[in-house]
Amino acid sequence: MVSKNEIKLITSLQQKKYRNKYQLFVVEGIKSVKEFVQSKYPVYQIYVTEDIHIDIDQNLQSIISKNDLKRITNLKNSSGVVGIFKIPKLFTKDTDDLQIILDEVKDPGNLGTIIRLCDWFGISQLICSTGTVDCYNPKVIQATMGSLTRVNVIYTDIKSYLKKEKVPVYVSNLSGENLYKKVVDKKAILVMGNEANGISPEIMELADKKISIPRFGENSKAESLNVATATAIFLGEFRRQSML
Amino acid sequence: MVSKNEIKLITSLQQKKYRNKYQLFVVEGIKSVKEFVQSKYPVYQIYVTEDIHIDIDQNLQSIISKNDLKRITNLKNSSGVVGIFKIPKLFTKDTDDLQIILDEVKDPGNLGTIIRLCDWFGISQLICSTGTVDCYNPKVIQATMGSLTRVNVIYTDIKSYLKKEKVPVYVSNLSGENLYKKVVDKKAILVMGNEANGISPEIMELADKKISIPRFGENSKAESLNVATATAIFLGEFRRQSML
Repeated sequence: MVSKNEIKLITSLQQKKYRNKYQLFVVEGIKSVKEFVQSKYPVYQIYVTEDIHIDIDQNLQSIISKNDLKRITNLKNSSGVVGIFKIPKLFTKDTDDLQIILDEVKDPGNLGTIIRLCDWFGISQLICSTGTVDCYNPKVIQATMGSLTRVNVIYTDIKSYLKKEKVPVYVSNLSGENLYKKVVDKKAILVMGNEANGISPEIMELADKKISIPRFGENSKAESLNVATATAIFLGEFRRQSML
Repeated sequence: MVSKNEIKLITSLQQKKYRNKYQLFVVEGIKSVKEFVQSKYPVYQIYVTEDIHIDIDQNLQSIISKNDLKRITNLKNSSGVVGIFKIPKLFTKDTDDLQIILDEVKDPGNLGTIIRLCDWFGISQLICSTGTVDCYNPKVIQATMGSLTRVNVIYTDIKSYLKKEKVPVYVSNLSGENLYKKVVDKKAILVMGNEANGISPEIMELADKKISIPRFGENSKAESLNVATATAIFLGEFRRQSML
């Protein structure tokens, strides 16, 4: 049984305003909910329909009817499991590794893909400008495929953050130097910009080196690459060079 | 003025069945429509609302009301321009360059992103298995950002195609050799597989070399990368090695 107030709370978490107010977010799907339970995220409540047996502490589970599930799920085809988790307080950690910073990335799919890439390439923290899309947005969570449990996403004033950091700052820029000819530093920061406008001018001022992925072929008139695919190529090349 | 039959025809083109029947497809947005008009794609009809002035031959334009636009557009916020183009007959061409083959890629956003990547990296033809999502699907066209005008997408029986080709066939495979340690051939074929199942067994049999993008970091538990981001990393590395 889910009370009216619970339904109201859970559906309100589709919106950033209420996620911030209650410091809660929603995860859907058996596999993803299990990954979040096993991770650092404190559980608020797990709603499970009668027919689902999920390998999670019974005390955390609240058994609900399929009708109630319909009232709280955001998916057309729910798997029967809806998890509500507390948003953890995360802080930046010092690192000797490559750092990725996002400057106003707005598309949930792009952020989700970049979190998944960070997980793959062993980048444990992703720093985002305060205007970057919220990582607890349901579309982001879906796109991360569980990687959000292994990558700390931290929202901060990236201008102040960059001013304090002493490592070389690379920015992705179409007129930058050829990524493949540029020997990159192992300990560095890579900043990726907004889908339409790229890096903001005030962040560009703090860049030490501008780098770009070269176009190939005379017929290529592609104006740009999607920010997530560009991040994939940069990360791959930074990691390749770190192996040398 | 748009007749009832025209509206029926145009809206039917959202479905692959009718695109195949009429050999037509829809492009929306001023910039994209202009790119398609300037490309190899023969125009069937361009519908434009009265208030829009678009730099396209007047004879190709059909001026319509905003109400009629609402009846034919597939977008929530249409820019006022809907282009109908004929599907060209495309054939594979011999090439000395890297070739990309897709084996049952199903997501329109992934195909669109891969077409855009091919454009960026100067790959002029993309060969797809007949079960790969249709490149004239409106979501694919939107994701390509005009790149479909510069990359020939050809659907064929990829098993027969691979059997005829004499160049080394690389397949993306999680248990394959480290991409960065493997010197890749300049003239080669790279096959990328389905989102959930990877490369089909019958295609895997035709592979000469299996390659993978290495995971980094001990904590990485990411199970896979999205096929479009993996293609980005492979293409970047193949092109980098070709520059050496």
